[in-house]
Amino acid sequence: MTIDVIGIENPLIDLLVQVEDEFLEQIQVEKNKMYLIDQERLRNVLQALDGRRIHPEPGGSCANTLIGIARLGGSTAYCGMVGGDDYGRVYVEKLEAAGVKSYIASNGNLTGSTVILVTPDAARTMNTYLGACQDLDASSIPLEALRRARMLYITGYLWDTPGQQEAAQLALSTAGKAGLTVAMSLADPFCVARHAEDFRRILREHVHLVFANREEALALTQTDNAQQALRVLREWCPGAVITLGGNGALVAEGDELAYLDPFPVKAVDTTGAGDAFAAGYLYGKLRDASLLQRGRLGSYFAAQVIQHMGPRLEQDPRTVLRPVLDDPRN
Amino acid sequence: MTIDVIGIENPLIDLLVQVEDEFLEQIQVEKNKMYLIDQERLRNVLQALDGRRIHPEPGGSCANTLIGIARLGGSTAYCGMVGGDDYGRVYVEKLEAAGVKSYIASNGNLTGSTVILVTPDAARTMNTYLGACQDLDASSIPLEALRRARMLYITGYLWDTPGQQEAAQLALSTAGKAGLTVAMSLADPFCVARHAEDFRRILREHVHLVFANREEALALTQTDNAQQALRVLREWCPGAVITLGGNGALVAEGDELAYLDPFPVKAVDTTGAGDAFAAGYLYGKLRDASLLQRGRLGSYFAAQVIQHMGPRLEQDPRTVLRPVLDDPRN
Repeated sequence: MTIDVIGIENPLIDLLVQVEDEFLEQIQVEKNKMYLIDQERLRNVLQALDGRRIHPEPGGSCANTLIGIARLGGSTAYCGMVGGDDYGRVYVEKLEAAGVKSYIASNGNLTGSTVILVTPDAARTMNTYLGACQDLDASSIPLEALRRARMLYITGYLWDTPGQQEAAQLALSTAGKAGLTVAMSLADPFCVARHAEDFRRILREHVHLVFANREEALALTQTDNAQQALRVLREWCPGAVITLGGNGALVAEGDELAYLDPFPVKAVDTTGAGDAFAAGYLYGKLRDASLLQRGRLGSYFAAQVIQHMGPRLEQDPRTVLRPVLDDPRN
Repeated sequence: MTIDVIGIENPLIDLLVQVEDEFLEQIQVEKNKMYLIDQERLRNVLQALDGRRIHPEPGGSCANTLIGIARLGGSTAYCGMVGGDDYGRVYVEKLEAAGVKSYIASNGNLTGSTVILVTPDAARTMNTYLGACQDLDASSIPLEALRRARMLYITGYLWDTPGQQEAAQLALSTAGKAGLTVAMSLADPFCVARHAEDFRRILREHVHLVFANREEALALTQTDNAQQALRVLREWCPGAVITLGGNGALVAEGDELAYLDPFPVKAVDTTGAGDAFAAGYLYGKLRDASLLQRGRLGSYFAAQVIQHMGPRLEQDPRTVLRPVLDDPRN
């Protein structure tokens, strides 16, 4: 079986819980913020949630993108590390149910998770425990599956531990030797700040297509405008996508550069907008859509996702994206 | 003497008057709207203003751009038709005082004017009487000066009468034969709607660089996104600038395309934003600035203008644009 895109990153199970505002006060978190927490803190938060209904869904930036591509009709596979607990099993089951082939390894630690506290005003307060994710190492990379794929997709979150870095490095060199197209998302601005040197090297040595939002792109290229950031990114790797939030997006591959008007929608929750953009764009690339059309698939997918809560669409993305998928224009 | 840019269009004297809200009701106009009025209506409005202080300033889209270029240090000249009245004399005097050489012709009609009613909330309600502007004809074109210029700048407003069209056509063919660079602004969306066929032909046959906002560009190219509009415009003429309001701008000449981030400013009055963009961009082009730098000069100039009332800066634009003019980047 051919694999269109194989992704490697942090399998984080999203644990959605409805809470009242007082709960945030009780556990001393500020609404809408994201916290990186340790195991003890996770235990305390889960204990405090005692009795509330917890809704687990496979999450993490890369997995969100792969699920998006799979639901559009692409064949995808995913590698990462979960724990030997229930959440690890649920993660794999639900990921495969969403159409993504799992090459997830597991160990004896706790599965990484993001406790997402949803208050009645629909605000989301996130608490991420990386857990087993950080134990990914080179021996967990499914080399045989990787060599069969057309594209490798990774994110900057893989640079946080030496083991993950080794795994990423092995995946990149294997992909290079096997002739895969390599795409990378810079993950988030903090990730860029932590690993700027590494990222510049990785882009130069291994990557064909980089995804960044404007803030990440400016930080990595040390410029103050999107156009120059794009030019610098493309000195390192031939393809680059810079999303500009409400101002649209810039995409460039080969000799071509295109600007994408923003779709005029009302943003409810921008979680997962970048992941959806990458899904639409990569799916378009797999289908050999024109550059402008790839960009439209990405920005339309992102525009749909931000109009409701959560990083994914409940409806079938093939239906939702139909107006753009069927668009005959280039 | 060399002329960097010669412009041809409608010399409209701006008549700024402070009025109270009740005055708008009295003369039955809606705040913030633009009205095209006839001579009788003009007389009535001026009569109703009886006793109020009227502040006359040379205006019109093309003149605004030329004054901007002149104040940045370019040498500019301007042709159009005024009446034999005081406003005609004041127009020429103040235009030359602003650094623009006048090749303005005059006849026995009334000078075109825009009565700008400024209410205490700083809203501007415009009433434009075209008057003598519409009498411009081929015999008024200063052919000798035109041949000495490096660039001809015209706007779509010249297509409203057969005489003006003949004048524009003579200017375009003379410029072509003399090897001038020809730049054209599409003027406004209504103008595009009225003359779309003519504009497409003019762009194909005569124009090197077209200026449009997104609405005008989409209307003329019959597309629904800025990137495709740009591509179509460039099938007709090699250079194109599409301003995107608060989303930035797209500029393209030769093999190059650049996106300009918007400057994050608070818009007070967007009157003259497009005129200022053209002034900064053309001044950059005259100085052989890079494409990105031209765009930055245009968008920075526009960003400054929209932060205060009126289409021009009171301060010296060379001082205001210093941060961009001195910017060594490409």
